[in-house]
This record gives sequence, C-alpha cells and structure tokens, in this order.
Amino acid sequence: MDEYLIYVGGSFIRTENRLDVSCSFDNSVFAYTYLAGKEDVEHSILMAQKASEELKKMPSYRLEQVLNEIAQTLKADRRRLAEVLALEACKPIVYALSEIDRAIQAFRVAAQEALRPPNEYMTLDWTLAGENKEAWIKYFPIGLISGVSPFNFPMNLAAHKIAPAIAARCPIVLKPASSTPLSTLELAKILDQTDLPKGAVSILPSSREVGNLLVTDERFKMLSFTGSPEVGWRMKNDAGKKKVVLELGGNAAAIITPSAKIKDALKKCLIGAFSNAGQVCIHTQRIYVHQTIFNEFINAFVAETKKLKIGHPLEAETDISAVIDEKNAIRVEKWILEAQKQGARILCGGKRHGNILEPTVLTGTNNTMKVNGQEVFGPTVVIEAYQTFNDAIYMVNDTSYGLQAGVFTNHLDEINKAFEMLECGGVMINETPSYRVDHMPYGGIKDSGHGREGIKYAIYDMLEPKILVKPK
Amino acid sequence: MDEYLIYVGGSFIRTENRLDVSCSFDNSVFAYTYLAGKEDVEHSILMAQKASEELKKMPSYRLEQVLNEIAQTLKADRRRLAEVLALEACKPIVYALSEIDRAIQAFRVAAQEALRPPNEYMTLDWTLAGENKEAWIKYFPIGLISGVSPFNFPMNLAAHKIAPAIAARCPIVLKPASSTPLSTLELAKILDQTDLPKGAVSILPSSREVGNLLVTDERFKMLSFTGSPEVGWRMKNDAGKKKVVLELGGNAAAIITPSAKIKDALKKCLIGAFSNAGQVCIHTQRIYVHQTIFNEFINAFVAETKKLKIGHPLEAETDISAVIDEKNAIRVEKWILEAQKQGARILCGGKRHGNILEPTVLTGTNNTMKVNGQEVFGPTVVIEAYQTFNDAIYMVNDTSYGLQAGVFTNHLDEINKAFEMLECGGVMINETPSYRVDHMPYGGIKDSGHGREGIKYAIYDMLEPKILVKPK
Amino acid sequence: MDEYLIYVGGSFIRTENRLDVSCSFDNSVFAYTYLAGKEDVEHSILMAQKASEELKKMPSYRLEQVLNEIAQTLKADRRRLAEVLALEACKPIVYALSEIDRAIQAFRVAAQEALRPPNEYMTLDWTLAGENKEAWIKYFPIGLISGVSPFNFPMNLAAHKIAPAIAARCPIVLKPASSTPLSTLELAKILDQTDLPKGAVSILPSSREVGNLLVTDERFKMLSFTGSPEVGWRMKNDAGKKKVVLELGGNAAAIITPSAKIKDALKKCLIGAFSNAGQVCIHTQRIYVHQTIFNEFINAFVAETKKLKIGHPLEAETDISAVIDEKNAIRVEKWILEAQKQGARILCGGKRHGNILEPTVLTGTNNTMKVNGQEVFGPTVVIEAYQTFNDAIYMVNDTSYGLQAGVFTNHLDEINKAFEMLECGGVMINETPSYRVDHMPYGGIKDSGHGREGIKYAIYDMLEPKILVKPK
Amino acid sequence: MDEYLIYVGGSFIRTENRLDVSCSFDNSVFAYTYLAGKEDVEHSILMAQKASEELKKMPSYRLEQVLNEIAQTLKADRRRLAEVLALEACKPIVYALSEIDRAIQAFRVAAQEALRPPNEYMTLDWTLAGENKEAWIKYFPIGLISGVSPFNFPMNLAAHKIAPAIAARCPIVLKPASSTPLSTLELAKILDQTDLPKGAVSILPSSREVGNLLVTDERFKMLSFTGSPEVGWRMKNDAGKKKVVLELGGNAAAIITPSAKIKDALKKCLIGAFSNAGQVCIHTQRIYVHQTIFNEFINAFVAETKKLKIGHPLEAETDISAVIDEKNAIRVEKWILEAQKQGARILCGGKRHGNILEPTVLTGTNNTMKVNGQEVFGPTVVIEAYQTFNDAIYMVNDTSYGLQAGVFTNHLDEINKAFEMLECGGVMINETPSYRVDHMPYGGIKDSGHGREGIKYAIYDMLEPKILVKPK
Repeated sequence: MDEYLIYVGGSFIRTENRLDVSCSFDNSVFAYTYLAGKEDVEHSILMAQKASEELKKMPSYRLEQVLNEIAQTLKADRRRLAEVLALEACKPIVYALSEIDRAIQAFRVAAQEALRPPNEYMTLDWTLAGENKEAWIKYFPIGLISGVSPFNFPMNLAAHKIAPAIAARCPIVLKPASSTPLSTLELAKILDQTDLPKGAVSILPSSREVGNLLVTDERFKMLSFTGSPEVGWRMKNDAGKKKVVLELGGNAAAIITPSAKIKDALKKCLIGAFSNAGQVCIHTQRIYVHQTIFNEFINAFVAETKKLKIGHPLEAETDISAVIDEKNAIRVEKWILEAQKQGARILCGGKRHGNILEPTVLTGTNNTMKVNGQEVFGPTVVIEAYQTFNDAIYMVNDTSYGLQAGVFTNHLDEINKAFEMLECGGVMINETPSYRVDHMPYGGIKDSGHGREGIKYAIYDMLEPKILVKPK
Repeated sequence: MDEYLIYVGGSFIRTENRLDVSCSFDNSVFAYTYLAGKEDVEHSILMAQKASEELKKMPSYRLEQVLNEIAQTLKADRRRLAEVLALEACKPIVYALSEIDRAIQAFRVAAQEALRPPNEYMTLDWTLAGENKEAWIKYFPIGLISGVSPFNFPMNLAAHKIAPAIAARCPIVLKPASSTPLSTLELAKILDQTDLPKGAVSILPSSREVGNLLVTDERFKMLSFTGSPEVGWRMKNDAGKKKVVLELGGNAAAIITPSAKIKDALKKCLIGAFSNAGQVCIHTQRIYVHQTIFNEFINAFVAETKKLKIGHPLEAETDISAVIDEKNAIRVEKWILEAQKQGARILCGGKRHGNILEPTVLTGTNNTMKVNGQEVFGPTVVIEAYQTFNDAIYMVNDTSYGLQAGVFTNHLDEINKAFEMLECGGVMINETPSYRVDHMPYGGIKDSGHGREGIKYAIYDMLEPKILVKPK
Repeated sequence: MDEYLIYVGGSFIRTENRLDVSCSFDNSVFAYTYLAGKEDVEHSILMAQKASEELKKMPSYRLEQVLNEIAQTLKADRRRLAEVLALEACKPIVYALSEIDRAIQAFRVAAQEALRPPNEYMTLDWTLAGENKEAWIKYFPIGLISGVSPFNFPMNLAAHKIAPAIAARCPIVLKPASSTPLSTLELAKILDQTDLPKGAVSILPSSREVGNLLVTDERFKMLSFTGSPEVGWRMKNDAGKKKVVLELGGNAAAIITPSAKIKDALKKCLIGAFSNAGQVCIHTQRIYVHQTIFNEFINAFVAETKKLKIGHPLEAETDISAVIDEKNAIRVEKWILEAQKQGARILCGGKRHGNILEPTVLTGTNNTMKVNGQEVFGPTVVIEAYQTFNDAIYMVNDTSYGLQAGVFTNHLDEINKAFEMLECGGVMINETPSYRVDHMPYGGIKDSGHGREGIKYAIYDMLEPKILVKPK
Repeated sequence: MDEYLIYVGGSFIRTENRLDVSCSFDNSVFAYTYLAGKEDVEHSILMAQKASEELKKMPSYRLEQVLNEIAQTLKADRRRLAEVLALEACKPIVYALSEIDRAIQAFRVAAQEALRPPNEYMTLDWTLAGENKEAWIKYFPIGLISGVSPFNFPMNLAAHKIAPAIAARCPIVLKPASSTPLSTLELAKILDQTDLPKGAVSILPSSREVGNLLVTDERFKMLSFTGSPEVGWRMKNDAGKKKVVLELGGNAAAIITPSAKIKDALKKCLIGAFSNAGQVCIHTQRIYVHQTIFNEFINAFVAETKKLKIGHPLEAETDISAVIDEKNAIRVEKWILEAQKQGARILCGGKRHGNILEPTVLTGTNNTMKVNGQEVFGPTVVIEAYQTFNDAIYMVNDTSYGLQAGVFTNHLDEINKAFEMLECGGVMINETPSYRVDHMPYGGIKDSGHGREGIKYAIYDMLEPKILVKPK
C-alpha cells in the first residue's frame, strides 16, 4: 500500500495522524497519507513568507519555465496520475485522463499569463491637478494565499489555485479534500522538483479544525475556496481582512428549444447529467424541454441513460461509478425517494447499490423538491417541459443558485434573451451548463459563488495594483 | 449672397479665385468662397508646424474642453448649419439635421478619447535579456495630417478627420469637396473661436492640382482620404513616405432571409437605398432576397419607393432631391439605361429630370452591369432572388468591393456564416449595410479602402508609439 | 434655519427624529434634517429593486446624459453648495470649492465610463474542447449597492459611490455621516431632477443601528464604505454574502531626499499636513527627511506652519478651521500631549481652542506614539530625519497601514525602489501621499483598505461578468 | 559542398540558376542554392491561396502547437544552425547562437499571441441610433503576405515575419537576402515537417527583378520589408493597394550623462558599436558623452576597442569578423577616410584587410560626414562631447533617421525629456540604442521606417478587423 507524505513548507513529512485513502467503489483502502496539525500550518506559513521574498525576485521567464515544466511532467506521467485520481475520486478512468489534461492546460495557460499582468499606463491630466503628471499601475503579488479544494476534481481544481498562485508570485498553502488528497500530493512531488523556492506551495490534508486556520489566519491575504455553498459562505464571515473567492455549486439547468439539434443536445446532456456521477459543480441537474419535443427527448434520454455502464473506475468502459462515500450515496437516495413521495416520477434508475447510485431520470418535479431545488451532487437529472421561452428562463432562474446555464437554440432572439436574463455566471449556447474550458472566466452569482476563477482571472485576484504618479 | 472666406493657417482670407456654390436642385448659386493656391497650402503647413509644438504641450483636459466646446456650438447653431449643408449638398433637411447631430457626436467622442491613448505598460523579462527591465509605450502625435473629404457628408466626414486630429494633437490641413465647401468653412469659424493654436486646422477648397500637394508634400505624415476608389488608390501611390488611410466606396449589399422581420427589413432597405439619393459610401445598392419571399418583398418595396417624395432639400417632407451635379445625374441615367439594354428590368423610376433622378428599382441584373457591379452613387437599387444562403453570400462577395453588408436573419448559423465569410469591413445583422454609428470602426477591404475610421480608430492612426525601456 | 428632507426611495420625507447640523467652528446649529428609521431603509430597498429593472433597460447614452446633467447642475450651483459643505464640514471655503469641482469631475468621468464596460471577446479554441467555439464576456450590474460615506469629504466621497453606481446601472442606498448629511441631500435634490428612476438613489442619514442594515441586509450585493479602519473591518465580517470595498485611513508618509526641490516639497507637504485640519484619509502625517537637509527643511516648515491662518470656514483667507467635533478635538490634543510625555518635541502648535487645534509639528517621535503610528485625523505632522533611503522606506512601512506614500526625488533608482518596496496603494513622486485625482485607482492595502475606488475601478466592482459561449 | 533546395509552395526544388553562398571572411564558397524565377513566385502565390483557406480553418491550439514545435526543433538543432548562420553571415558564433535563441523566442511568443487576437466587444448605444444594438470586432487574416528579409540577421528577422504570419493565419512568401539564404532554407525544412498546409510558407532566394513581384503583385495584401531605407521607401511607392511595413535602418545614438554608471555604459556601447561588425539596424553609430566625462570615456573606449579580437566567425573568441562583402568593406573604408579628410580624427582602427574592417572609433565628426549622418552598417562609431542635455538631444535628433536611442542616466528629469523629445521609435534608459527584446514593439520613425514589428504588433498588422453589429 502506497504511503504519501504531506508537503509542509517545502519538506515531505509524516505526522502522527494517519489518513487512509480508499476507493469508494469497493471501500478498499489503497493508500495512506497524514493529517497536518496546527504546527504544520504554522511552519507552512513561515516558509511561505520566506518564499514570498524569493518569488518576488523571480523574473517572469523563470515563472514561465517552472509552470511549463510542471505541465510537461504531468504530461509525461499522465496515465499513472490518472489512475491515482480515478481510484481516490472513484472517477471513471476516461474522465480521470481528461482531468489530467485539463490540469496540464491550467499550468500551460498560467505560464503564458505570468508574462502578461494587467499593468496600465494612465494619463492623469484630466484636470488641472493632473497637469504634467502621468501614472503607471503595476500589479504586485497580494501575499500568502490559502486554498481549499474539493474531492470532485482533486487535480484540476487544485491546479486552478496553484498555477495562478505561482504565476502571481504568491505562495499558497492548500488543503485538499480529505477523501482525495493523493492527486495534490502527486502534484507536490512534481512542484518540489522545480526551481520554486521551498515553501512556495504546501499541501496539507487536515481536519476541518486545523484547516480552519487557512480561513482565519490573518497572514493569508486571500482565501480561494471551491466546495459547498454552506461551507463557503460561512468561511467568508470568518475570513477577517483577507480577500475571499468562493467557487460553490448549484443546480444548473439546460433549456432545449425546438430549433436545437436534438441528438446533439441529448448526447451532451447525458454527459452533463452523469459524468463523475453528477458530482460536478456545474452538473446538468435540470433540463427544460419545449413541450413540442418533450416526449421525444425524454424517451430517448431515458433509453440512452439505461445504456450507461456502471463499473469500477479503472475499467475503460465504465461511464459511471460510485459516489464519493456512503454518506452521500445514502443522502442522494433519500432525496430521490423523497421527491417520488412528493409526486415526482422516476423514469429510470433511482436505486442504490452500496455507494453506487444508478443514473436516475426524474420528471414531474418542482423547485421545492431537493432533487430540483437543492444541489444534488449525484447522478440524477430532472427533465421538465416548458411552454414559452420566457417560462423556461423563469424556471431556470427560480432558485437561489446561479452558476451556469445551457441553451440549445439556433435563434438569435432567444440567445439574446438568455444572455440578458439568465441569472448566472455563464450561458452556454448549444452546450450544457457543464461546459468549461480552463481559461474562461468561471464562477457563479447568487448563492453559487463570489468572484471568478479561470487562470487569468484567478491571477488578477491574486495581484494588488499599486499606482506610481510621476511628473512627465 | 453669402461670402465664405477660406481658413488658411488660422486666418480667414480671400484669394483671386472665386468659387461659386450652388444648390443642385435648381442650379441656383447661393454663396461663394475661394479656391486656395499653392502658397496657401504652404502657409497652412508652416502654421501647422508651429501649432504642432503648441498642441503637444496642451494638457488632455484642454483638448477635451476644446472638443466639447465645438460640439456645443454645433448644437447651438444646429438648424442654420443644417440648412447650409442641405443647400450645398442638395440633401433633404431631415437628413442634414441628422448629419449635424452625427458631427456633434464625433466631436463629443473625440473629447473622451483624447483622455485615453492606448499607452501600454509592458513586462520585458520574458528572456534573460529583459531581466530587471520593463517598458512603457506611449503614443505621440504622428505630425501633420492632410485630409480630403467628399461632398456627400460634407460636415460629418470632415468632422471624422478634424476631431480625431485635434484629439491626437495633430494639426490638419483639409480640402473639402469643391461642390460643398461651406459646411467645413462654417466649422472653421467655430474652431477659430476655441483655444486651439492658430494653424491647428486649415480648410482649403482647391483645385485638384493644388489639392494634390496634400498628397505629395512630405511634411504631412498622414493622409486621410474619403472619396472614390479610383482617386484614393492613385493617391496611395503618390503619397511618398506618409501613412495613408482611404475610406472609399463600394456596392454594398443586403441579404433578406425568410427568418427576417420583412416589414422592418423593407423599411430599413428603403432608407438605405435612397437616402441622400444613394450618394452614400455604404449605399444599399444591392438586395438579395430569398426566393420564397422575393415577390412579396419586391412588390412591397416598389410600392413604397413610389411613395417617396421628391423635392427641394429645404422642404420638410422631401425624401429625395437632386444628385450633386448634372454630370453625375447623366451618368447614373446612362447606367440605368445601359442595364436595361443588357436585360435588366426597371420596376420603378429610371427617369431623370434635370439633376433629379427618380428613385429606381431594378431586377434581373448581374455583376457585369454597372448598376450592380460598380459604385452607382445614385438613387438606384437592384433586388435579386437567391436560393441558398451560401448563394447569397457568394453574390454579395462577387465584386471587387468590400465595405459593409447587411443580413436580415434570426438564425445563429447564418449570422456565424455571414460574419466569417462576407468579405467586407462590417456585417450588420437586421440592418442594412448603410448602418453606421460614429464611434464604431468603419472602413472597407478589397477595393473599398485601407484602414479604419471611427473616432478612436482614427485617433490611433494619428499616433505613433514610442517605447521607453528602463531598469526596474 | 434650513430644513433638509431625507431622500427615501425617490421621495423627500421627514421622520420623527430630527438631526441638527452645526458648524464645528462655533458649534452653531445652522440647519436640520432627519434620521431615517428601519422602515425607511426597507422602503429604499423596495424602490431600489424596482429602479433596478428600469436602470437595466436604460441605454448607455441616457446614463451619460444623466451623469453629465448632474455635473452641470453642480457646476451651476457651485458656490452655494461649497458654502453648505464648508459649514457642515467646517472646511475652509477654498477647499470646499475644490471639493465641489472634484465631485463634478467624478460625475463627468462616470458619464464617459458608462459607455465603456470592460466587455471581452475571447477565443475559446485553446484546446480541442473549445474548437469551433468563442465567447463573449459582458458586464452586468451587480445589483443593489449600499454606501456609507464619511464626514471629511461629504460631497466628493459620496459622489465616488453614487456616480459609479449610476454608471453601472446599480441602485444605491447611501448613509452619509451624521455630522455632514447636507451635501449629499443637496446632491439628492439634483439627482431627483434627472431622468433617473425613483429609487435609484436614496440618501439616509441614520443612527449606527439603522445604518447597520446597509451592512447586513442580503438584498444589497455590495457595500462600499469609506471611513475608519476599525468600523470598516468590522463591517466586512458582518457583510454576509455581499462584496465589500473598504476605503479606510492610515498614517501616510512622505520622504524628502536630497535630490528633491526642497521648496516645492515643503509647499506641498504643508498642504498635505494641514488641509482640512488633517482630516483626510491620505493626510501627510509623517515626513521623513534626509539628515543632510533635515534642519533646513524642518525650520522652514515650522516657519511656514506658523503663518497658516486659523479662522471661520467661510472666510476666504482661512487655511485651517475647527476639527469635526469636540470629541475629536480633545482626542487629538491628548495624543499630542501623550507624545510629548513619551519624549517627542512640539515645534509649533499643540494647543487646542475649543474645537480648533493649532497646526502642530512634532519631532522625536516613533511609531509607538499615536501621533506617528495611529491615524490622527487632525492637524499634526511628525518630521523625522533618515540616513539611507532604505531606512526611510523601512520607517514608512513600519506600520499596519498602507494607503499612499510620497517621495520627493529625481533619482530613478530611488523611484524604482520606492515603487517596488513601499507597502501601499500608491506612490507619488514629487508629491505628498495626499495627492489624488479622481479617475486614478485609489485605495490601500494592509489595514488601510480592501479594493480600489476611482470612478472606473469603482464601476468595475459594481459589475458582474457573464460569459456567453457560442459556436462560431 | 552542401546543396540547399528552395522552398516553393510546399515543395523543395532546384532551378536553373545556381546561387553560391560564401563566407565573407575568406570568400570561400561553402554551399549553394538556387534563385527562384517568376514562375516560382506564381506557383508560391497559387499554393499560398490554397493554404490560406486551410489556415483559416485551423483552430488556435493547432497554430500554437505548430509554432511551439518549430521553436523546439530550432532549439534541438541550435548549434548546427548557428554554424550555418555564422558562415553565411560571417557572424561570430557567439552572436549566431544568440540569434538562434532569439528566433526560438520569436516562435514561442507567436505561439502565445496566436491565442490572443485583439478582438473587441463594443457597446453601440452611445446615441439613439445604437439603441438595443451591440457589436463584436473580430480580427481576420489579412491574406497573403510578402516578406523581404536582410542579410544581417538572416534567421531572426525572417522569424519575425514568418512566426507572426503563421499566428495570423496568413500565408507568406519570403525572399531572403541573396548573400544569406541558408538560414531561412533551414527554417523551411523545419516548417515543412509541421502540420502547416503546403504553401503556407515559401522561401524564394531571387534576383531583385523577380523579388520585385513580391512588391507589386496585388494578390499580396501586405508587404513586410526589412532592409535599407533607400530600397524600402521605393517599395512603398510601388506597392499598389497592399499594406506596407518597413523596418529600415538609421544612425542610432547613445547619450552618456554624468549620472550614468560609466563602466556599465562603456561595456554596453562597445557591444552596440561593434557586434556583427556594426551591421545592425540599431547599430550604436554615435555616442554623445557629457564633456565632464568625455576624456575618461573615450580613452577607456578606445582601449577596450583595441582589445577586440578579429577572427573567423566560427572561432569562439572572435568578437568581430568580416563585413558581408567586399563592396561594403570598400564603401565603409571610403567613408572613414572621407571623414578623416573632412576633419575627423581616427582614434583607433580605420584600416581594411580584405573584407575585414578594424573596429574604428572616430571623433571630431559632424552630421555632414557620412560616418555620422548616414547609415554606416560597418564597425565604426563616432564619439562626441556635449555640454547640456538639451544639446545632446538636439544632436541625436539632427538627422533624417529615427530608430532607437539610448540614454545612460539616473535622473528622472532627463529620462522624461529624452522620452518626450528624442525623435525615434524607442528610448533605452541605461542601455544602448541597440537594445531589443523580441516581443517589444520595434520600428522607426522619420526615414527609419513605417509601422512596428515585435511579434504581437506584427500579428496585429496582419489582421483585418471586421465588425458585427447585432441587436441585443
């Protein structure tokens, strides 16, 4: 069984608290690591402060080199890393491979953006007071970053915090999810081989109590959290003077209009609904289909859902595997049954086998049912009919969340309306809400988040402008 | 009869060559001015060189003030100025008023852009050679500008050269069209009342021979020409070392698809085809209508065309008046009859009454006929049917020109295709090719032009970047 | 005695709680207004929500018009408004006039920026997943804004919240300082005459308890606070899900090097130290002078300080008047005496006459003394000698604050070092830290703030990006 | 002896006209290639037109890949390529290696910029006419590019045309200098191994007559020329409708002020004056030294110059080798002797040995002497004293050229003055005018050029904006 040391201020260490890591498919423990203690957080902070001074002095081209090296090493070890990821996250291997590819791209983009801070050269003589003066605005590293990353994309969502932090010359102390610490610790080994100063990155699996220091310690100037809305918003209140960026979840929806290419829409919705067993922030949890094509769509959708292959994450044909743990498996099952009791119909799936939930299609739901109105984070989707496009928009918006939405249409007036009226961070035309490429601005409004990620945007948040006013 | 002095290096003067200005509607001479000689060009250049030094020192807020003052004075005198314009250009008063409004906007936008040069603050340490260095890129005035503006929008197209030049701190010597010198000379009076240094702007009506000095004199660093393709491209060859921006014409086309709102399209095409008697660079000269709606469209279009009121430019109800002079009236008439001989059908109009041409609708044309393939600059339009959207695009592109195009559609796939494939400077969705707002980038490709205008873009062309590399 | 109604959701109303407004110079009450209650906050929110829908639909040019109209009305009534401001803030009239001018500029700049959101057009095909797609990023209003503005610049700092909010199409509910509510209520009268929807702006003088609703109510999506660090940071913890921008204070410092033009530096430092009786966020509270010029500088500085004329704010020759209230006058006096006890020397001033403090120069201080290390917000300055430039930077940085700093030097190496190493939001070369023009990014780091104001930057904070991903 | 085939429309071919390539150091022919005929130009154009359609369809990530691959292959074969370059250009190997490195960087930067076109998303509703509309501005490839590159940096200056062309999706037909065709033909072999469509790049060594087709053929939409002012400006007149960018030469100057670090300045000036035997567009041809340090500087400079090692380009210790051919060697010798006759003093060097000129320092010159006022393109430098900084600026500007200038100073007022007043494209602080990193905007004003290169800027010139106006 593999042992993973944790990465504290530039050193790989053991602690007294062992943390077993298992694959949820069969609950088999396949590796172990350690939980960091408060003193490890303290040591990471002290080393980060030292690294901060060194990072500030690194020329841009060395940042670019380091980030590209990380990308290359990830690429060289892609298969093995995907297998570690697949096991710890119980994610089908094909998706695990794709996640590694996305992490590679995150580091590559960060390498390029490291060269392009949003510095400005500003005229000041807009009034007499500015006569014969001009200004330069330069972006400096904000300081130490704390990061908390989730279990569902343990490699890529950590990469979305670490890569920008390096590009911004900010040290980062990151707490991965306790269920999936290995991918980030693999990343730590790669980072440790680069020219980065020791302490630039620390990876600390930890208890919530210890992890809370990442939220409250005032030496961190920014907290970047990806996880559940409940936890995220509480952190914001506890964060003191630091900046807070929250990437939370939601109950994202797609709209299928009559002008859509139905087959294409269906194929994409199937993936949006069930990839990673629905444990995706932008999981396609709700689909609103125009009434004239509703029956056609839902029948075909159920038929395709039934073909999905449930299996072990390392098997190449697996479409869907277990959810992250039993607690969540039971919760999702309960939500489905509760919806059924409240009048929803289960068109397929709905059963739990240990930690595995069958991919489940429901209809006849409304937003008071948890499978519709709350974030399920499981392999369920509700499909409902709508009459007018305005109705569809109303239903998509009638929730406290607002991450992304998808609209399948060829009509400009609908696209315009969707863009103006859908309350969320992103509208995908002819794609599901689950669509994301790594350099685009990503994040939610309403209860779904605070701020944006997407390499360049994450970097900008980690920089602090300073203006130099000078005579000219 | 009103006398207008010409504006030479900051002074209003007479010369020995009087230039009568008439209204083409009835050939009545209603004012006169003077033709500049070579010595006037020389004096303008010398004064411009002096003004250049003073302009360089003006703080941005004073540029902003001057430009806003010009806008306010134009606004205060709007009605009278529109009447002068209407008479000299034989332009219906309602369109003349709208042209004054656009000139006002040109100066207002220039006032704002004067504060916002595209200066950059650049990191240099992308390689070892740039280590510990950084750079500022600042935009300086390019130097003296020469401008040549056309008769069809004598106020606004002059404003599109003068306003950016002031915002860029570049003196400008402008030759207005000989048939329409008065609007720019009115503008000269307004400019002269501001704080601009004398010589910052000169307005020199002149013969082509004298005007040619604006093309060839090497003390001008940029030539901005709006006019016919033939003249423009010749100028480019004669321009020596100076930068050249050409805003030429074309035979712009609109496409009407079945998903369009037909009434809206028809109403806009009517204006695009006949406003200012078709003497517009982006005159809607060709309309391609999907075969399924062709008959409906063309019948309605002809019916509406017949309702247009021909009259004196100062009468409020006039939709269409005379073209700029007899030579052009005869030419357009000839082109129409030639097309008829070659097989085209005249559905309405086609007759000439002195300098007035009836608004003319033709069909059955092809691009070997001048009314289709050449720039008519008269009140004609050809309307043809198309089968597939690809056919329509092919027909729009099958010409040596490429200024703007209009597409009436609600379908995203057609919009995408139009944007990618139409060979021109601008594609207007649900508008005719004649659409323009004054701050947008405007200009053609192929034989239709070289470079872009549209206040900000014109300013940028009048600026020269200089980089400062410094240790950091 | 003038009565001012408060501005609640588009209506001017009285409440049961009268609020007297006095001039601190002689404690004379010269006007009164009312304190808003919780129901007034509620009504303001409801009206703001309605206004929000109307604001969203307003085309940009109407926003521009409204903002320019406000600027013009301020300009037309400049003298009277300055007198109201002078009395309520006890600010010498010459500075009050200048503050009105700055508020005018704030609205003018906002008018221009309303046309220029930072929308982006992004390529997505950086990996296979983005092939044949592209994206637009459009900035939408974030929603309702709450603002809390301070007594020291009651007109301009309110303008810095209201003007951006209008430009961003966000309704705003603003609580002015209780001691200086009149300027904003004058502004309310001007706003009420424009085309803005009722409820777009509310001005609610209120108790701290009622005002706290602006911090805690979740219907506000952003809180913009200008005031003391202590209050500001507490608000951040109470703000729930909303975005928070804090413009706080500090103990800003200037460095005078031997290459400086001493007379110029002295003149500017005198204004920086004593304008508005030091009640300025970027008050020049500390001056570090190179030891070789220290004696010369400090002697001349004390001599000039003694020439400052204390008087009534409405008298034209007054340089300095009373501080905002007795409580603060007593506090500042106490801090001065405490410093003296701890070893500091008072070189001039140091005495209190009612609410008036003499302009006070101290030396021999260190950062454990409140006059050096805390924010004084009174007419005091400490002047100390330094040996090396590095020493000076160390002393400027050795505090928990970091708003702005000034460096008087002609040497590039010192400028570079200052820009890199001074921990603050802005470094002014050959200006005091008190320098600000209204369109520049303004704000502090460390305990001095969170985020930036400066029209464009404030607008950007009030906007939320939304991405549209589409096929191309 | 190595044979190099020329690269015509995607094929490597021989022609009937053999072109021998020799090393100027000893006139030894070491390789041969062929001169393209008119039919080869024609074939290249036809293939380029085909390639154009394929390039348009390539997603950005494939452009990025291709460009990075080229960089990697250059890197892998760096030594061998440098040797080819060293021989054909008679360039000391250490400089040849550095040139290969710069070409690598050119391709790397182009790879990144290929992802970042300057597309805009613009609001249109600045007036009523724009209400409910918005616009996207997208940059499309301008079409076929013709390039003409010089002998002095045969690899890197070709890279500065080819890399941007690929990034902009524009096919390019390039004529290398006849004396140095091999580096570009080596590059052709590398390009041919990539996924680029055949015909995307053609490399055609040719006679001036055949090469002139690249200037005159209207199927080319842009000509990018680097070479002599005389040839460049004539091309501009012959270029017809195409856009023209000219990177020409000059007589660049450095100013050494008393606040400079003299040793550092001297070391850099020595390289600026003599690297590549002065055959550099931004050759440091003139040095103006403040009179108080003139003697010290010039004595040390002459002493260092005498230490320079003349030798074969492939020897590692060689600092300076032969100029490109005998004709130029004789011309430079003549210019030196002519200056001497006119009163200049030769402080060292001045002799010719075959094609080798000794590094030559002159003083007592003025701008009527060719070694001062014309572009020498040989290993000479003139060093003169100045009294005031204004004098120095006057002398630097007193020429028809204006490429770059260097100023060694620590004083902000001098830096400001230099930036404002030096008439050129770039001012280098504490560097010679010979400073360049490959991503910075680079180019001259006055007779030194037209437009800017520097990857991003070159790409932008190869793109044509198209606006899409749409309802919103």
